Order: sequence, then structure tokens, then C-alpha cells
Amino acid sequence: MNPWKELRRIDHEVYLLRHVSSLLGWDQETYMPIRGIEERAEQISLLETLIHSKIVSPATREALEGAKEQLDEEQFATEIGGESHVRPFTPIQRAAFLREWDRRVARASKIPTSLVSRMAYATSVGQAKWAQAKKEASFELFKPYLQEILILTRELAGALGFRETPYDPLVDEYEPGMTCAVLSPLFEQLRKDLVPLFREIVSASTVDDRCLHLPFPKEAQEEFGMRILQAMGFPFERARLDVSVHPFTSTLGADDVRITTRYNPTYFPTAIFGIIHEAGHGLYDLGFGDEIRGTILAEGVSLGIHESQSRFWENYIGRNKAFWTYWYPILQKEYLKDLSLVPFDTFLLSINRVQPSLIRVEADEVSYPLHIILRYNLEKALVEDSLSISDLPAAWNDGMVELLGIKPSHDGEGVLQDIHWSMGSFGYFPTYALGTLYAAQFYSSLLKDHPQVLQEIEQGKYGTIVQWLREKVHTLGKIFTAEELCRQITGSPIDPGYFLRYVREKYLHRIS
Amino acid sequence: MNPWKELRRIDHEVYLLRHVSSLLGWDQETYMPIRGIEERAEQISLLETLIHSKIVSPATREALEGAKEQLDEEQFATEIGGESHVRPFTPIQRAAFLREWDRRVARASKIPTSLVSRMAYATSVGQAKWAQAKKEASFELFKPYLQEILILTRELAGALGFRETPYDPLVDEYEPGMTCAVLSPLFEQLRKDLVPLFREIVSASTVDDRCLHLPFPKEAQEEFGMRILQAMGFPFERARLDVSVHPFTSTLGADDVRITTRYNPTYFPTAIFGIIHEAGHGLYDLGFGDEIRGTILAEGVSLGIHESQSRFWENYIGRNKAFWTYWYPILQKEYLKDLSLVPFDTFLLSINRVQPSLIRVEADEVSYPLHIILRYNLEKALVEDSLSISDLPAAWNDGMVELLGIKPSHDGEGVLQDIHWSMGSFGYFPTYALGTLYAAQFYSSLLKDHPQVLQEIEQGKYGTIVQWLREKVHTLGKIFTAEELCRQITGSPIDPGYFLRYVREKYLHRIS
Repeated sequence: MNPWKELRRIDHEVYLLRHVSSLLGWDQETYMPIRGIEERAEQISLLETLIHSKIVSPATREALEGAKEQLDEEQFATEIGGESHVRPFTPIQRAAFLREWDRRVARASKIPTSLVSRMAYATSVGQAKWAQAKKEASFELFKPYLQEILILTRELAGALGFRETPYDPLVDEYEPGMTCAVLSPLFEQLRKDLVPLFREIVSASTVDDRCLHLPFPKEAQEEFGMRILQAMGFPFERARLDVSVHPFTSTLGADDVRITTRYNPTYFPTAIFGIIHEAGHGLYDLGFGDEIRGTILAEGVSLGIHESQSRFWENYIGRNKAFWTYWYPILQKEYLKDLSLVPFDTFLLSINRVQPSLIRVEADEVSYPLHIILRYNLEKALVEDSLSISDLPAAWNDGMVELLGIKPSHDGEGVLQDIHWSMGSFGYFPTYALGTLYAAQFYSSLLKDHPQVLQEIEQGKYGTIVQWLREKVHTLGKIFTAEELCRQITGSPIDPGYFLRYVREKYLHRIS
Repeated sequence: MNPWKELRRIDHEVYLLRHVSSLLGWDQETYMPIRGIEERAEQISLLETLIHSKIVSPATREALEGAKEQLDEEQFATEIGGESHVRPFTPIQRAAFLREWDRRVARASKIPTSLVSRMAYATSVGQAKWAQAKKEASFELFKPYLQEILILTRELAGALGFRETPYDPLVDEYEPGMTCAVLSPLFEQLRKDLVPLFREIVSASTVDDRCLHLPFPKEAQEEFGMRILQAMGFPFERARLDVSVHPFTSTLGADDVRITTRYNPTYFPTAIFGIIHEAGHGLYDLGFGDEIRGTILAEGVSLGIHESQSRFWENYIGRNKAFWTYWYPILQKEYLKDLSLVPFDTFLLSINRVQPSLIRVEADEVSYPLHIILRYNLEKALVEDSLSISDLPAAWNDGMVELLGIKPSHDGEGVLQDIHWSMGSFGYFPTYALGTLYAAQFYSSLLKDHPQVLQEIEQGKYGTIVQWLREKVHTLGKIFTAEELCRQITGSPIDPGYFLRYVREKYLHRIS
């Protein structure tokens, strides 16, 4: 048996099974009847167990080791079989493929299969319980399930192993190579600069954003959102838009990427910016190069880089003056006639209003990273067992006051607002802030590469942007690491300076 | 390792994987973006291969053989483990469980894994091509895919083995124990009696059914359908109603059954009777007893018995005068005001109009079995290689003229109308006619057991019916064979006389 051929076969099977598992998850959040959850949890658990078993199987290890040797001997000729989905790799792709499989096998081998299945079950049930708890604003309802998930998470961190903190192997799952040794000082610096900057912006301007709180039927919002998606080149023959409690993007196939949003009938920015945000994720997953199609390399580099794409579209494009120069007249004329007497500047200030806010996904782009810093500190403490779950709601509220100067009136708009912990996704939140920083850095490069792009945005044209992102980020998939990619695109490693300069420029010099 | 425990574990895994595969299929027909089909076909193929491998694995055989020995020795005490989904069986359930696993392993062992995966792939692609071909009324477009599927089907029949005709092992998949030696004379007798009876009914009455061809918006049709579903006790916390090209019922979990329909905005019987029909299937799959939950026994006895449930609701209840005595005033007042001047009798005659028709799923209940007899003869000939695919459209049209006295004007309303052959489901069609015969027989028993039931139907109450079906059919799952069940409920084996008497009584004596 040719080990390359065998490894490519296994790789593609895992690729397919992961998408099947994604369908189970997508359906659970969108269309599944409520009582389907019990068996769905079992189904997901079984799928995850199957995937895990396949990754750690002796056949996989053998193929991986064999492929590495063949790489050394440069015997690539027999690499590909007759399967249409297997395309030849370049040497760089081959090396990346082995790097990713090495990482995957190394991580998976440390995790007992029983833990995979217990975690899959606990989080599947946990998500349903979280949704109910959030609806009823009852942390008590969610508490035992979160406790169970946290215990399994600590078990997971222990199994993966760590030097300094059990949080490190968790964040590494989402942002390969990242550790608290890097994150903690980065976030501390960001906090020190951003908290006073945020306060300065808030006190420098008072915005009356009543124009955003107008009745706007769900169907019309959806239609407007679909129109923006079409302009962004979101390909509906390969993608969908649906509704879920918590917006997300899920990839169910190489040509099947689904985004969701939620509609607030009297506050349309929720849905519209949510759609633009998720479409940014979606375009990434729809843009992987043909040569890496159907392989482990057809994935985002890291969640931070993934989030850079969604934040890029949501904030740097979607909240841009040039963007609404095109869309505002259309919105006024065709969708929301109540806006016809609202001046453009009022609208623009409203959608860029900076203020202390409770809900992360609706936060302005300035205070957004502060929401993340709060979650980072809390979840790190939970994992390190220096904070108990009973004390979590109070710690949340205290942190909100400290960082944002505002306190939730109930847990539904506080500690229960995010789905992540119910999914067992500890270590995920930091990637949102990293994404924000990457996006600022990429945006700066785009403007350098294409100085005319703002004029194109004013005409509702995004071809240059999509093309640029595709070439610089999307087609490459997981070939390069986050650090390599950031250096390639911007000439420097991740640097919060870009974001802070963008904020100062936009909010203290231009808009206000 | 306790073989019973092991077999129950394997059984439950297969149960879960089959539901995962059903989700892949359901999603393909309802929400999947069009270009998702290529990878979806691979995903389904992989899942079917996994299920097949599990069934034929040495571990499964060993557990099955071990369990049989333990059955002999009556060592049942250690049968169940700590798993919540495993409930103890009664001796009858235990025997049925072994019978079904014996059958499953015996069949699967004869089918090479490669054939399973080739068939899954060919039919997944075939379904998409069929949908396109039907839309464009182009048999040529579908022909090469059908040819491929037919070749694989013959290979399948050969692998399964047969004495008289390769059609026998195919129909046995859907109707265990059924052969052409029984079917052919049964259908020949039915044809001989039904063709003249059908002609007599058609010539005895002329019905002007213009009242059914009124504009009726999709949303309102759906609302009306949902209301009927609610009255039938269709549990939306465990079920859904969606839209697809070809209506179907799919079971995605013990508490997750999904039906679909399609809406014709100027002919509402399509959707409404479709919904009632599929709900009949759905209630069956939602009604399996707790003791067999999550096992191979939690399935319909056969497709014929399954179809008896849908036909029972669609025709014997849904086209009943008593049914519309309740619903017609509601339909007139709340949903379709254009009907307010249409007398009840006109409406009732319209929905029971008997006429030569082209489309099976919209055929009246009298001529419906003739549509099946046509398909039975054609697909049997295809499988036996006495009819070529090139000659199929002409043979279809000739058969229509002979049996129903009507000829399709294009293949979209002829040979391309049904999804089944694109799914590789040769041998499936006869079960529709068997279902019709069973339903007539069951209905006769219901009226004997509960003579007051027609008065309840007049009040929109179906509790007695649901309870009766649940007790007599649903809770039992696959414990008894179709023949055993039919005898238990009606005191005799399948007998077309019930159906023919029902038709004569309803159409020649009562309505017209």
C-alpha cells in the first residue's frame, strides 16, 4: 500500500465525516424539532468518536510515518490514485499537509476516545440547556451542565498536557501556537490603551441613534441582507442564509457553506451586520484553492485569521462611510421609508455609535475587544480553578463595570449571552480579539495595495476586495501559519498599533 | 464480552448512523445549496459504507451468534448494561430482534462493500440529475444515470441471489418475504377487476372539480395543513413539515420525524392530501413502543404496512365525507372564501373525482393501484433485461393508455415523474399497492372495533383512530411480520376484496 495514497484517502474520509458532523450541528441550531436533541447528542457523539478513532488508528499513524519517509526520498510520483478528489500537491503544500496531520494525530492521540464521546454528548445537551437558560435568564438552570463541561475541559487540558497553564493547550486548539505567555501581555497592553481611548470617544460625542430603532419587518431585513450578500459575491448556489439563536457559519461541504443570523424587528443592525460578518467567514471557506480542495488544508489558518475575515467585512467595510454612501439611499428608498428624513451623517454616526454596551455581538468595534478581555480573564480563571462557577455571574458583572462601566440587569444579557462555554469552547474567545487586530492590519495593507478601493466601495463594488482577500488569504487555506500569513500580507507580525490607530483616526479625527 | 450487550451496542450504533444518513438525504432534498450535491454524494456513500462494514464485521457476526446461543440457554439476566437507551426485551421481542439481525447480516454479507458505495454515489448523483431532467422534461438527460443505476441494481440482485427472477431479492428488501410468485397473480387479479370497475365509475359520473382549482397562497395552504396536522396529533416538538420536489417522510431520530410536501398555488389538494398522507407515515415512526426504542425493531414492518398508514389517513380518513363535514366550513370561512358559494356535495365529489390521470401521487384512490401495476411490470422487465431503457418511455406511454386510457404529453408527466428509480429503489413501487390493500382491510377492522368513529371524525376528533393504530400497529414496530400483523388485526391474510368492496360501495352506491 502506497502510504501517500492511503493518507490522502484517510484525510478525505475525515474531511467528509467532519462535514457530516457539521450538518448534525447546523441542523440542531436551525431546523431540528426540540425533542430531537437527546438522540442528536448521541449521533454527534458517535460521529466525533468515529472521527477520533480514525485519526488515532494504527493505519493512520503508519500511513503518516510512511508518507514522511517518502517525502524525504522524494518519491512523489505514485502519490495520487485515480480518485477525482485527489489532486497533486506542490512541495510546500505537501509539507503543510504533513505538518497538519502531525499536529492532528499528536493532539488526538492524547485524548482518550471516551473523553471525546463524553464531551460531545455533554456539549450537545449543554447547548440546548444553555439556549433555554438564556431564554429564561436563569444561570441556575445552566449551572450543572456548565460544571460538567468545565470538568471535562480540565480533563482535556490535562490529557493534552501543558507547562504553564491548562489554558494553553485549549487556546492552541483554536489558534495553533498561541499561549498565555503571548496573549496575556498583548491583552494587558490593549486594555491599558483601549479603556481610556474608549472613555475618551464616548465622552467626546453623544449620538442619538433612534433612527436605528425603527420597525423593520423580518422579511424586508432578510431581503436587504440578501441583496448585500449578492453584491459581496456570496454564491447562493454554494451557500445559504438561515436563522438561529446565535449567528454562526458552518461548512458542510466544499460547495456548501451556511451562515445564520437573527432578526430584531425593531433594530435592524443586529441582522444586517450579523449577515455581513458571517458572510466574511463564509467567503473564506468558499475560497480555498482547487489544489487543496477536500483535504485538511482546506480550512482556515486559525480562528483568529478566520475572524479577521468576518471583522474585516463587518467593520472595516460594513461600517465604512463609503459602504453606506452606496447602500443608504437604497435602504431609504426601497426598504425603510421612515429613514427618508434622516440625514446620512446621523445614520452613519448611529451605526458607528460607541457606547458602553452589554452584548458582545452587538458591541461597537471600539469596545468589542474589552468584551473579549473580560471573557479571557474569566475562562482562564475557570480553567485554572481560581474562579468557581458559582462565583462566575458576579465576577462577570464586576468585570463589566470595570472594563465597560456598565452592569447587566440579568444573566441573560450577562454571563449567559454567549453559546461558547456550552459548546465546551474554552480558549475560543481570544481569537475574536486577534481577528479584530489582524483585520485592522490587513485593511491597512489593502488600502496600500489598492488606494482606489474606497471609490469602488462607494459604488457598491467589492470585486477588488474579494479578489485581494482570495489571493492573500482564502486560496491558501492552512498552507501557512497565522504568523507567516500576517507577515506575508502586512510585512510585520500581529501588532495592536494598527487597530488603535484606526480607532483614533476614525473616531477622534474623522467622524466626530 | 457479553454478546447480547455487544449486539445491542452495535444495533444502537447502526440505528444512529442510519438516522445520520437520513439527515444527509433529507437536507439534500430540502435545504442543501444546489452545488453541494457532489460532496453530499460522497458523504452519503461514505456513511452507507460505514454502516455496511459494521453490519458485516466479524464482531457483529460473533455477537449475533453468541446472542443466539444465550437465547437457547436463557441467560438473559446480564443482557443489559448501564446504558440508558438499552431496555430489556420480552422473549417475543428478543426473538424478533434476532430474526431481524439475522436477516440484516445475511443480506448485507452478500453485498460487496464496493457495490454499496458505488450504488450510494450513483443514486445520490442520480437523484439530482433526475430532478433536473424532470424539470426539463428530458429523459435523455437522465438516461445514462438510470442506465448506471440499473446495471448496479442487477449486480445487486445477482449478489443477493434468486431462484425465479432477479426482481425477487429486490422487492424482498422493501417487503420482506414477498416474491413475484405472490405479487404477479395478486396484481393480475386486481387489474382484471379494477380496470372495468374504474371505467364504470368514470363513465357513471361527471364531476366538475373547478372548485379545487382556485388561487390559494402557499402560506395559507401551509397554515391549513398545519391545523389538520395538529388535529391528527402530529407532535411538532418531535416533528417538522418542510417543502421538497417529491414529498417524503424521513426519520432522523426517535423523536425527530420530518415530512415534506409541495404546494401548487392553484390546486390545493396536492399539498393538503400530501400532508395528510405523509403524516400517516410520520405518526407510525413516532409511535414505536418504548421497549423497542433505539433498536432495529423501531421500524415499520415493511413498506407495504408503512404505506397502509399513509393511505389510511389520506384516503379512508382524509377523503371521507365525515372528515370534510368538520373541515369544509373551516376551509370556507377561514382559508378559502372563494369556496363559500360551493355546496358541500360539489366539494366532496371533487376531491373524490375519479378520472384517468397522469401523475401517480395525484391519482384518485380508485385508479391509483393501476399506476402501480404499470410500474411493477416495467421495472420487473427492466431488471429482467426484457425491456431496454431506450424503450422505457414508449413502454410507459403504451401502458398508460392500456391501463388508464390516457397518454402523457411529455416525459416530465410520464416516465420521469417519480424519484424512485433515481434512488435505485427497484422493487419499491409494489408496496404502494399493498399499502392500499392493507389500508382498506384495516379500515374495515376499525369500523368493526369502533362503530362510532365516523361521528368522532365529523367532530374533527381522531383520538380513537390514533389510539387504535398505535395499539394495533405503531407500538409493535417490527416485532411481527406483515402477514402476522394483518392476521392479528383483520383475522385474514392480505385480500384485495376489501379494497374492491370499499371502492364499489363508495363510488357506485354512496357518492355518485
